[in-house]
Amino acid sequence: MTKPPARAEHPRYTELREYVRKTSLLEGMSRLLSWDQEVYMPPAAYPMRSDQTAVIVGLVHERHTSPRLGELIQQCLADTELTGDPAIAANLRELKRDYDLATKLPGDLVEELAKTTTLAQQAWKSARERSDFASFAPMLEKVLTLTGRKADCLGVPAGGERYDALLDLYEPEMRASQVEATFTPLRRSLTTLLEEVRASGTKVSTKCLDVEIEPDRQHALGLWVIRQMGFDLDAGRLDTTTHPFCDGFGPGDTRLTTRYRESRFTDALYGTLHEMGHGLYEQGLPKATHPGQPLAEAVSLGIHESQSRMWENFVGRSKSFWKWLLPKSRKHVGKALSKYDAKDFFAATNTIRPSFIRVEADEGTYNMHVMIRFEIERALFSGSMTVKQIPKEWNDRYHAYLGLKVPDAARGCLQDVHWSAGLIGYFPTYTLGNLYAAQFWEKVNQDIPDLSAQVAKGDFAQLKAWLVKNIHRHGRRFRAAELCTRVTGAPLSAEPLLRHLRKKAAQVYGLK
Amino acid sequence: MTKPPARAEHPRYTELREYVRKTSLLEGMSRLLSWDQEVYMPPAAYPMRSDQTAVIVGLVHERHTSPRLGELIQQCLADTELTGDPAIAANLRELKRDYDLATKLPGDLVEELAKTTTLAQQAWKSARERSDFASFAPMLEKVLTLTGRKADCLGVPAGGERYDALLDLYEPEMRASQVEATFTPLRRSLTTLLEEVRASGTKVSTKCLDVEIEPDRQHALGLWVIRQMGFDLDAGRLDTTTHPFCDGFGPGDTRLTTRYRESRFTDALYGTLHEMGHGLYEQGLPKATHPGQPLAEAVSLGIHESQSRMWENFVGRSKSFWKWLLPKSRKHVGKALSKYDAKDFFAATNTIRPSFIRVEADEGTYNMHVMIRFEIERALFSGSMTVKQIPKEWNDRYHAYLGLKVPDAARGCLQDVHWSAGLIGYFPTYTLGNLYAAQFWEKVNQDIPDLSAQVAKGDFAQLKAWLVKNIHRHGRRFRAAELCTRVTGAPLSAEPLLRHLRKKAAQVYGLK
Repeated sequence: MTKPPARAEHPRYTELREYVRKTSLLEGMSRLLSWDQEVYMPPAAYPMRSDQTAVIVGLVHERHTSPRLGELIQQCLADTELTGDPAIAANLRELKRDYDLATKLPGDLVEELAKTTTLAQQAWKSARERSDFASFAPMLEKVLTLTGRKADCLGVPAGGERYDALLDLYEPEMRASQVEATFTPLRRSLTTLLEEVRASGTKVSTKCLDVEIEPDRQHALGLWVIRQMGFDLDAGRLDTTTHPFCDGFGPGDTRLTTRYRESRFTDALYGTLHEMGHGLYEQGLPKATHPGQPLAEAVSLGIHESQSRMWENFVGRSKSFWKWLLPKSRKHVGKALSKYDAKDFFAATNTIRPSFIRVEADEGTYNMHVMIRFEIERALFSGSMTVKQIPKEWNDRYHAYLGLKVPDAARGCLQDVHWSAGLIGYFPTYTLGNLYAAQFWEKVNQDIPDLSAQVAKGDFAQLKAWLVKNIHRHGRRFRAAELCTRVTGAPLSAEPLLRHLRKKAAQVYGLK
Repeated sequence: MTKPPARAEHPRYTELREYVRKTSLLEGMSRLLSWDQEVYMPPAAYPMRSDQTAVIVGLVHERHTSPRLGELIQQCLADTELTGDPAIAANLRELKRDYDLATKLPGDLVEELAKTTTLAQQAWKSARERSDFASFAPMLEKVLTLTGRKADCLGVPAGGERYDALLDLYEPEMRASQVEATFTPLRRSLTTLLEEVRASGTKVSTKCLDVEIEPDRQHALGLWVIRQMGFDLDAGRLDTTTHPFCDGFGPGDTRLTTRYRESRFTDALYGTLHEMGHGLYEQGLPKATHPGQPLAEAVSLGIHESQSRMWENFVGRSKSFWKWLLPKSRKHVGKALSKYDAKDFFAATNTIRPSFIRVEADEGTYNMHVMIRFEIERALFSGSMTVKQIPKEWNDRYHAYLGLKVPDAARGCLQDVHWSAGLIGYFPTYTLGNLYAAQFWEKVNQDIPDLSAQVAKGDFAQLKAWLVKNIHRHGRRFRAAELCTRVTGAPLSAEPLLRHLRKKAAQVYGLK
């Protein structure tokens, strides 16, 4: 065995770590500015905040692209004593990846993208209000041209297509062809499942979801639930915003937000569980020991999403979860829920019904929404589809995959902000997250055979420890594909998610 | 008349303004970090926050002391077309002042002061808990030595003594000798007033203050009151902290905090009015048109305090205020206060009773506390008093000025954090604030003869407009002494405050 290198003896690596740590402190500030903007900032402060953000983003960008950083990375990579340590080697590999990506994009392109997407988001908002795709199309053309230039600057990754240059930003090393190879069987099997659900004729009551609960009580319940699940509220918070999110600013500071609808308490409950899943990942990353380093960062958006979806859907929509929560809920929400039992809530929170809006979709149909977006944006990027064709292509697919007739563009291809924001290649990570979650979930249930009984008792400690040990603590040491194989023994596949959805449908709709 | 210079034609001045604006954006972030730390930050984030603060403070300090800034100021000062504009000339004068002060302090002294005062504050806290001055004395010696070095670096201002170098940081151009000249008659007359109050034998009931009101309702009331008074809640906030404060981060963002005590609602009410007075000043400064420039900054701590004290004491403790508030309070706090009338609250909130703790002192005795501190810190600085002598000197003065026997150091010379934090020369600004407030108050009542009737109707618009026009909008254009003369037609004097206090004492205690 080789002795691990004494890191203090490597002044270059020490300098590199210190450099990266300082950058991450500035990034944490930038994130705090944006958190504050969403949560507490008075509206009149917008112009100043936008200037502040530009200043701090500029400082961070300077540090991400400075020649000194490039030199330090090169010098460390040339030092075999450093690269002989697998953890350090992984850290350097990822630092180099980030540096290469950051330095590939010319400043004027970054600036033009920022300006254009700001305008495009405004155009999108007003087009959505009027359900008028034609008025948005020219801005979308511009965004696609610029993201195309961005892809060209980044370069087509080995064995990939132009679209992959963007996908790689969110899901490193993932290729559109691999996504397609996983999504196609998923789509086919989901189509069958949806037909079976429809054919079953079973009507599931969702009356139990209509119980009214005041926002304050929902908040108290949410705080209690996430505390039980292991979210450290001494190192985090839960606030209210229009659009729920989770952000980690650095060691000891992970903040969640949610929103409360009095007439549907499960909206906030599942929203909170979702964000808490992200939050547990952030809290599980070794940020205190590797501040700002890739070893303390999330692998990919897909893996991040797997953590949120696991707590939201695999834990939160299980019968065990409701068995635990219902009697405990009294302390926070009174007798509001006591007319119903765990079976009612299990069925009601697992209904499958095709709908138009992705963010309101159920677990069974959600991935169809994502796959439609993936197919369209990939086709736009390969040149096999034009912007003008989007509405028809969109509506045709909603009809084919979900049996729906899209009534207008607002409930169709204008519903999501992503494209106007230049986020091409982002959508597939939502479904990748569901797929990773399902595959991890099968494995954790093998490793902890009585997990379901533990959940029914409100004991989440072993589950959390498993996630930290197998996923969180590694940071970006392994890429997503390798992590998946290391953890589950197999490459990513659609089967675990399909088994999970079929099993639930069997219970709720009496399918075989 | 000379034509005002077309500022766009002055590239140096444009560059200077842009430089200063960018610095102020970073300063705003630094302030937001500290606001967040007090208000919402999870405790585990402390170590990261402390590193973040060090980074941003370092960046700001670099910009405040950079040679480029010095050059730009010099070049602009050499341009007679610029200095021919009185507003620009004032801006340049103040920028030069700030630059000179910032560059006079060597980095190692700043760092040593930061470290020593952090340790001294810890030592002070624990000494106060044990009421043990002797254990704090060595740290205080160190702080005094370092602040002495600081004063020497800054240099004794013209016509001043060593202490003035520090006083000048908080109250530019004010000298200890002037402070003394104003404080001495104030102290003598206050002594007489206190004797008369004692001799009157009048007992004022404060039962109306014991009404219990839930924090949520107090908060609703406070928000409503400050909105009526003109505080723009679209450009500000009110939150809860252990130690109330007000901070302005830049255009459109002024945040207040307060704290609620269920059994004494006037604590939060007056705390909120006080911070709102600071907040109205911040909102009244022309920050949007002169971002980061001295023309959009507060003149001095004394003038800032005059704004908080005016709303707290001159408006908030007036009979008119209670006449307005009592009937209106029902909507927010129910019938809690309806047993009492405006006369009860006017008397109860204007009792005069010597006490040990400055921050709990009434309006009549408050300045005695401040004057004692000023005398002691000035003597320490001139060498006529040693640290060891502080307790005896302190207690002797409390006996002489307030007729009190200080029972222990915790209720005596260990009560305030200021000295341990290196804030020597800061205390006098509290009483200067009261003096300015009284002098402004007499003038505004001459200019708006029915002001008291307006307050009784909850109409604060003319008062606010007067403050903006006469004080806020000028920023640092005039120094405090000049501002005082311009606004009131006379230099600062103790008489207006004495008249104000005597008049109240006459009403409450039946003095002639």
